Amino acid sequence: MAASAHKAKTPVKSPWAATRDRAAEREEKREAVLQAAAQAFAENGYYKTSLDSIAARLGVTKPTLYYYARSKDDLITAIADRAMLQIMAAFESDEQAPALVQLQHLIRRYVEVMATDFGRCIMVTREIRLEGPGGEELRVGMRKIGQRMRDLLQQGMADGSIGPCDVRLTAFMIAGAVNEIPHWYSDDGPMSPATVAEKFANQLAAGLAPR
Amino acid sequence: MAASAHKAKTPVKSPWAATRDRAAEREEKREAVLQAAAQAFAENGYYKTSLDSIAARLGVTKPTLYYYARSKDDLITAIADRAMLQIMAAFESDEQAPALVQLQHLIRRYVEVMATDFGRCIMVTREIRLEGPGGEELRVGMRKIGQRMRDLLQQGMADGSIGPCDVRLTAFMIAGAVNEIPHWYSDDGPMSPATVAEKFANQLAAGLAPR
Repeated sequence: MAASAHKAKTPVKSPWAATRDRAAEREEKREAVLQAAAQAFAENGYYKTSLDSIAARLGVTKPTLYYYARSKDDLITAIADRAMLQIMAAFESDEQAPALVQLQHLIRRYVEVMATDFGRCIMVTREIRLEGPGGEELRVGMRKIGQRMRDLLQQGMADGSIGPCDVRLTAFMIAGAVNEIPHWYSDDGPMSPATVAEKFANQLAAGLAPR
Repeated sequence: MAASAHKAKTPVKSPWAATRDRAAEREEKREAVLQAAAQAFAENGYYKTSLDSIAARLGVTKPTLYYYARSKDDLITAIADRAMLQIMAAFESDEQAPALVQLQHLIRRYVEVMATDFGRCIMVTREIRLEGPGGEELRVGMRKIGQRMRDLLQQGMADGSIGPCDVRLTAFMIAGAVNEIPHWYSDDGPMSPATVAEKFANQLAAGLAPR
């Protein structure tokens, strides 16, 4: 049935495919740059991290690094932005579930992200009061996470899954408990991010449920 | 009865008294320097605060300021150290009381201090990873506060005032909730530090009490 024209041939080496390969390679390298930078910022903070030290972690020269990121602010913004979007992904939840369950879902994700180098960088941007549009975008994002928690606390008091509480204060208490994670959580410790997330979500839920 | 030698005289103007006055005056000025510096660090963080800007807040020149503090590190250490001692003062509590009540006492004080410019400076030293003996002393102090909370949580599980919990994780959650206060509490807001302290202590206690 197969027409002879369709028999296997050595494929033409397309320049577009090569472009795609180069794009993929560039993406992979940019990813490695972000990972190395996130690790450096998480370990040493913003001011004690230099582009040189990030380049050294990757075994490349600073000019090579410049090809992927123009400045420390570029890097920290890209890193923190990604972490924030990872947390916000948990805004999607089963709307039929009690609000407390939806809040646990958000807390679990928030904790998991904060236990990574990327999540730690959200706190680093806050510590340095990062300015410019990148800093503002992050602040707006973090406020949205706070707002989502307040909405769920309010909903939970309405649907009976959460006991009476001061919504604003409680949201700040939860955020604080989670934002503290970068200060004590160690990848080398006995608990995985998922374990910490589960413990946090359960303990906070126990504290919030009506008595 | 009074001997004539004892009748009121114009007091001799003693040079020692004058020295005491000068010492008191110096102390008062140093206090003002610490207050102004605490306010500046709390508002703008460490890196964006200069000795010049602190001098400007006081309406003095930088050389005058130098007489009271040699460096930003001197200042931030003195400020954070005082705040930490204020928190530690709450280690003294009624040992006959249930551990949960003693923990509430500590949380109340911890919150009150964190709602002041001096308390905010503890967080600033942490953010900048303050080095040297001053930085180390602060880290040791903060660890002692954590240890005190863990001890009370443990005691509370033993005396029945606190339900079963992961002591280490719970202490970190409480510390995080309190350490977050500098990020949202405003002196201009509707709540006094004492009100926030009361709400925190009560809500955390409600979450910790056995069910």
